[in-house]
Amino acid sequence: MPRPPVEDIAFTLRTIAGLDGAMAEGLLPDLSPDLVEAVLAEAARFADERMAPLDRIGDEVGACFENGGVTMPSGWKELYRDWTAGGWNALSGPAEYGGQALPTALAAAVAEMWNHASMPFALGPLLTIGAVEAVEKHGSEELKRIYLEKLVSGEWMGTMNLTEPQAGSDLSALRSRAERRSDGSYRIFGQKIYITYGEHDLTDNIVHLVLARLPDAPAGVKGISLFLVPKFLPDESGAPGRRNDVVCHSIEHKLGIHASPTCTMLYGEGTVEGEEPGAVGFLIGDENRGLACMFTMMNNARLMVGMEGVGLADAAYDKALAYARERRQGRATRLAPDAEKAGSMSPILAHPDVARTLLTMKGLTDAARAIAFNCAIATDRARAHATSDAEKAGLWQERANLLTPVAKAFATDVACEVASLGIQVHGGMGFVEETGAARLLRNARITPIYEGTNGIQAIDLVTRKIGQSGGEAVSGLFAELSSTLAELSRRNAPEFGETAACLEAGMADLRAATDHLLGLLRSKETDAALAGAAPYLRLFALASGGIWLAKGALAGPNDQRIALCRFVAENLVTESSSLRHKVVAGAASLAAAHDLLVEAAS
Amino acid sequence: MPRPPVEDIAFTLRTIAGLDGAMAEGLLPDLSPDLVEAVLAEAARFADERMAPLDRIGDEVGACFENGGVTMPSGWKELYRDWTAGGWNALSGPAEYGGQALPTALAAAVAEMWNHASMPFALGPLLTIGAVEAVEKHGSEELKRIYLEKLVSGEWMGTMNLTEPQAGSDLSALRSRAERRSDGSYRIFGQKIYITYGEHDLTDNIVHLVLARLPDAPAGVKGISLFLVPKFLPDESGAPGRRNDVVCHSIEHKLGIHASPTCTMLYGEGTVEGEEPGAVGFLIGDENRGLACMFTMMNNARLMVGMEGVGLADAAYDKALAYARERRQGRATRLAPDAEKAGSMSPILAHPDVARTLLTMKGLTDAARAIAFNCAIATDRARAHATSDAEKAGLWQERANLLTPVAKAFATDVACEVASLGIQVHGGMGFVEETGAARLLRNARITPIYEGTNGIQAIDLVTRKIGQSGGEAVSGLFAELSSTLAELSRRNAPEFGETAACLEAGMADLRAATDHLLGLLRSKETDAALAGAAPYLRLFALASGGIWLAKGALAGPNDQRIALCRFVAENLVTESSSLRHKVVAGAASLAAAHDLLVEAAS
Repeated sequence: MPRPPVEDIAFTLRTIAGLDGAMAEGLLPDLSPDLVEAVLAEAARFADERMAPLDRIGDEVGACFENGGVTMPSGWKELYRDWTAGGWNALSGPAEYGGQALPTALAAAVAEMWNHASMPFALGPLLTIGAVEAVEKHGSEELKRIYLEKLVSGEWMGTMNLTEPQAGSDLSALRSRAERRSDGSYRIFGQKIYITYGEHDLTDNIVHLVLARLPDAPAGVKGISLFLVPKFLPDESGAPGRRNDVVCHSIEHKLGIHASPTCTMLYGEGTVEGEEPGAVGFLIGDENRGLACMFTMMNNARLMVGMEGVGLADAAYDKALAYARERRQGRATRLAPDAEKAGSMSPILAHPDVARTLLTMKGLTDAARAIAFNCAIATDRARAHATSDAEKAGLWQERANLLTPVAKAFATDVACEVASLGIQVHGGMGFVEETGAARLLRNARITPIYEGTNGIQAIDLVTRKIGQSGGEAVSGLFAELSSTLAELSRRNAPEFGETAACLEAGMADLRAATDHLLGLLRSKETDAALAGAAPYLRLFALASGGIWLAKGALAGPNDQRIALCRFVAENLVTESSSLRHKVVAGAASLAAAHDLLVEAAS
Repeated sequence: MPRPPVEDIAFTLRTIAGLDGAMAEGLLPDLSPDLVEAVLAEAARFADERMAPLDRIGDEVGACFENGGVTMPSGWKELYRDWTAGGWNALSGPAEYGGQALPTALAAAVAEMWNHASMPFALGPLLTIGAVEAVEKHGSEELKRIYLEKLVSGEWMGTMNLTEPQAGSDLSALRSRAERRSDGSYRIFGQKIYITYGEHDLTDNIVHLVLARLPDAPAGVKGISLFLVPKFLPDESGAPGRRNDVVCHSIEHKLGIHASPTCTMLYGEGTVEGEEPGAVGFLIGDENRGLACMFTMMNNARLMVGMEGVGLADAAYDKALAYARERRQGRATRLAPDAEKAGSMSPILAHPDVARTLLTMKGLTDAARAIAFNCAIATDRARAHATSDAEKAGLWQERANLLTPVAKAFATDVACEVASLGIQVHGGMGFVEETGAARLLRNARITPIYEGTNGIQAIDLVTRKIGQSGGEAVSGLFAELSSTLAELSRRNAPEFGETAACLEAGMADLRAATDHLLGLLRSKETDAALAGAAPYLRLFALASGGIWLAKGALAGPNDQRIALCRFVAENLVTESSSLRHKVVAGAASLAAAHDLLVEAAS
């Protein structure tokens, strides 16, 4: 596996997403360009040298379940030890608890590298960071004192326990229950499924965050509370003490991410001898306000799943490019002089169709990265303004809220598409597992599903995000994008070809589709709006991503960036008209056919 | 797994592709509507009851390689025995050798059912049928006498040995060699890779068809000959006699089709004690004309791989629809009355985004089926006219030639897309292997690669097929499609919505793109034409497939067909404008970016 694309990552972060600008404005006082470069270079080295070599064994052997325990693949424990020792787990953690408190943008950038090297490994710490956020923002001082330092350093890992068999996308159906105890603690009972890293041998303790219902809780999502349930209850010294009544019942046999144990967890089954049944849990935040606590960390988790998508996509691109350079078949007409040598075959990247495939892979990946980093920077700007300028902070938070579902859904869809195209570039070799191209697709395929399916992301974008502040968040973003388009038109450079025209058409389609949806929401035609949600998200991503690539291409003399941006504009953003059509006119045909689908199924 | 969609298959075959018309014209004297229905019903039953239940074990256990032998999964030998005993292998074989000589259209229809039930099983007989065609058309009378009856019945299976490590898409690099012997036989030496069903225990003998080079053969593809190399040399009685010098060296560990052994075969390694090295082979056709022999069966093999795509896609659709009907999450606004019941959740197919996904799956699948069956019927019409009307036969053969790459590439791309969407509909369950949705994607992913990658299909379409007879084949087809559009306009029924306008726009885009490519070919701008080949094939398929669905919707009162056709026209065929843009204008940006890709890689 080639090294992560450090140069592309740094450029996108600093120039396209505007980290340099935010540093120059003094919004990130602890950060300097030198520090950014140093962190990126060091992360790339660790990803490449330590993490990537263990991805294959992780896939082939996988996490092994036996007698309630999960054994991780050979070498992974040492990898995790070195990863935490290198301070990587603490990168974005709060300084008060030993973290480096570096910006989300930088965390997103290094996350791309971890996911490039081994997404099933990177997935574990992602959950821990979610637990850190929840405890930091909503936990009691005592919980913070006991747990935060160990979670920030990575000495202990964290998990998120939401899903139950009957409650996936719809958490209102959640049944796990919590009982109050007189000492202020709770006892948790119930079954949770699809719990990522729910059990493993990487750390001495595992800290589960669990959604459950109190006996007197109202029905629906307003009756859900969040609890911290450690695998081992810390003793007086803070070390793991007695075993808690939570066990891993089994792990799933999955299409991909074999090294990431996906666990069914049982709470309160009476598994601890001499103790009453019930897993000891501690409330996080207020009773019945658990979902709100979850939501505060959801933006970050969704962005980070988007980074899984970007990392997997650029790994697939790098691999396919390397293969297309080495593999020779046929004679490409465009390399006529070379081909005159008797018997010589061209590298397959010289064939137009292979080139189109590779450029599509890179174009989609770079667009997804630009969106995700813009989302990350908005979070950092919101945080920087939080204590000084509430209005600015609010605007940037809305920008982050707006871009989060786009980053998550587009990047993960792109990961699947790009990984599939990567297999295709490899031909028969791509279908053979040892090549590693198929593994990327298998790992990518979960990312559009978990942390809110991409369908849910599209619904979130349409029903909650574009309408924020009466559409101000979206119009502010569009104004910025349009100013890049204006600069592109002013530049009017021939090497951009039809880029400006294609991107302007894309932007016009995005504006029209947005206005259409806002109109439907105003008139309460929710179904019609939802019918176009997924194509709208795609349109949003292609138009904004394409324009951000143009922003990068305008930033300096770089022929590769201009050529790629032109390719994206003229070949991918051109899908905007049909996407707009689906948003604006597709709902009628969907409604007509939908009835028949329901009938056919009943 | 639900049963194959017999009704859709029969309707597409008889009405959209015109099997009824061909029967009425007397072109298929051995066929009657009753026979068609009986064959389809019986095939569906066998697929559903005997084949489908063994697909999962085939995936989980797979073909096992040990000591040069391959053991097939438990139950597969009995399944194969019953399949041949039922006469299914002999369906399209020549009557002279025990076959039923039924039309290609019917063979395609039942192939969809086999692939719906177990594509890795159906793949084996597909290769046997290729061997039958090659021996029947090009083999000597002696080869026919010894081998055909057994291959037609399925008592023995056949294989195709083309690929070598350095020769995949480009067979000119082929190195396996053949030496003449004084008795008229040959000795074959060399290594072949990716040989499907190259070794197994389903039959007593395996008949390999092998491409190799004679010592004095010219370089390139004009120096390749085709040989028949049996695993066991038949004795005087025709029974398997002494072992030939061909062995299976290993099998691949693959993403999917685990039960289909993908073998590395070694010829002439001196593996038979007491015999000189060299696998005994028999020439098929003339020396150095092997590729031409292969081409005669390639159309059928490519169409049948297209049927793998259709079968996998409709299996994925059926599975996802069944799940979306059972699984309840959230409350869909469109089912408001039902949702008023406290706590009731809607089946997820009531959510617009899930409905859009399911309709997209069905629309793509039905369009692919319509294209494939039209291709099959064209083959049958060509054959029916062969002895009576050479001109008509030629026209229909050109139609089949034209549609073959479209059927192969579109249907297999669709299989991957639809299988991936099917996983998405299942949510987390889709990522768990036991559900079976992931298996369909893993199996589908090979189909765009083998039997000529889909990139090769697009090149074939653009450089060889649309220019046949100076463009007559393509203009004849377009005229037929336009007459359906004219009927649609005349009908002007409100329930079709904007179907006519969308399909007309699609047809106009297809014509414009075709004219553009024909112009480029005339002016020898091959690279520019190749740059647009893949999007052109997609445009061709969406426009023609959409119009064929309209033909079906016009044929009789069926609200479901009208609604689906409308959905396809208004949501999928609308991609035609961006596809045309890629064909017409995308080549410039591709060329600009391509140079940089080559630089980046060098």
